[in-house]
Amino acid sequence: MTELPVHHEPPIYRRIADRLRDEILSGVLRDGDRLPGENAIMAEYGIARATARQALAVLINEGLAVPRRGSGVYVRLFRPIRRHGSRRLSREQWGQGRAIWDSDTRGRPYTVDEVRIERVPASEQVARLLDSDEVWVRRRRYSVDGRPVQLAVSHFPADLVEGTAVTLPDTGPGGAYARLGDLGYSPVHFTEEVRARMPQPSEARLLDMPPGTPLIVVARIAYAGGGVPVEFNEMTLDAASYVLQYDFDA
Amino acid sequence: MTELPVHHEPPIYRRIADRLRDEILSGVLRDGDRLPGENAIMAEYGIARATARQALAVLINEGLAVPRRGSGVYVRLFRPIRRHGSRRLSREQWGQGRAIWDSDTRGRPYTVDEVRIERVPASEQVARLLDSDEVWVRRRRYSVDGRPVQLAVSHFPADLVEGTAVTLPDTGPGGAYARLGDLGYSPVHFTEEVRARMPQPSEARLLDMPPGTPLIVVARIAYAGGGVPVEFNEMTLDAASYVLQYDFDA
Repeated sequence: MTELPVHHEPPIYRRIADRLRDEILSGVLRDGDRLPGENAIMAEYGIARATARQALAVLINEGLAVPRRGSGVYVRLFRPIRRHGSRRLSREQWGQGRAIWDSDTRGRPYTVDEVRIERVPASEQVARLLDSDEVWVRRRRYSVDGRPVQLAVSHFPADLVEGTAVTLPDTGPGGAYARLGDLGYSPVHFTEEVRARMPQPSEARLLDMPPGTPLIVVARIAYAGGGVPVEFNEMTLDAASYVLQYDFDA
Repeated sequence: MTELPVHHEPPIYRRIADRLRDEILSGVLRDGDRLPGENAIMAEYGIARATARQALAVLINEGLAVPRRGSGVYVRLFRPIRRHGSRRLSREQWGQGRAIWDSDTRGRPYTVDEVRIERVPASEQVARLLDSDEVWVRRRRYSVDGRPVQLAVSHFPADLVEGTAVTLPDTGPGGAYARLGDLGYSPVHFTEEVRARMPQPSEARLLDMPPGTPLIVVARIAYAGGGVPVEFNEMTLDAASYVLQYDFDA
């Protein structure tokens, strides 16, 4: 690939975003302040609405501002959902509950929709991870406050869970992990791998994400005693809605 | 904010990206295959170089393809650096080293540049996290294979580390944590918070990131015995270069 051309002057929406960013980072605009609206920016710079919107989108995508429906764009107020990777070593034991980033800890209720459950041949990757050529797959989408925030696709070794409630829409009290426990395969260890990337169009659509916003992808394997893998779960999170917390000893 | 306009037909670069994505996801193009070059795309669609480049950038940003300098754009080959959040519960004990995503495990050597060390008043956030109004700050940039991949900014309570090698460019054998140990404050517990967002221009410049590529931000507190916080480290990672691994028990 040839090198990108040198830009002598950034486009106007970039320069507007740069000015607003400076005001946020220097403290002229503070947490919770409303940014100038599209109409005000259009009038001040003599530009089209789409350009004004692009300027505001830059700051939203950088996590410095958030839109509120029908009200405008506000400085940060990043109040993501806190997802605990490990509950056993909980923060309560350490640092008197010192959180690095603010988050909404009042466990906002999830709603689950788009549940789809099927028995299918495993992909090459899943077959390797679960030692199983066929899998029961549970796909669902989680929403909080009416906004979709997470897609999750769980895979279980088909022969292990066949005929149990893991294959039904309602997995019963305690959920799928309790059903694995009924079989003598309670998960006792987890490994999670975390990456971030831009969404594919189908993911952006399912999660109703604004353009230019990244995803966090968490892939988890649950192991029962003896190192038997009993679940592979791929979770796709709207990055603007989450902070992941992990606690561990040295 | 008003709603975005309905697009009846996506722009040409999107349609080219959609076609290439379909070929990747359906297996017509396979891991390691070279994508059509800018010149080929320009000729086939009768478009400008910038538009062809935009189409390829979409796939790069989605993590489906990677550019190789002077050679073209290739299907995926996502071989990130694996960062272990917890070494104690290492994967070797579980799942026979089953990795979910491929990564380069031959510990490629890091080089460190741009080290800056200073004693400064703590920000409000850092003062709260470290129970200290002044901090020694170590800023550095890590590169792998000549490419910058991570910015890290460590904060230590100033009075705790004053006069030790933690305040020097060379922290000595075992690094800053060993020096904390010399003082009787070995880190024994860690909490990490992980989020993803788009980079600010200064971050994209320091990490030499292509436009539209997200960051992973890892914020970590190290605690000594008794729950005393001894370090706050904010790490900013090029998301295309990393997979984070966490292992924990149920």
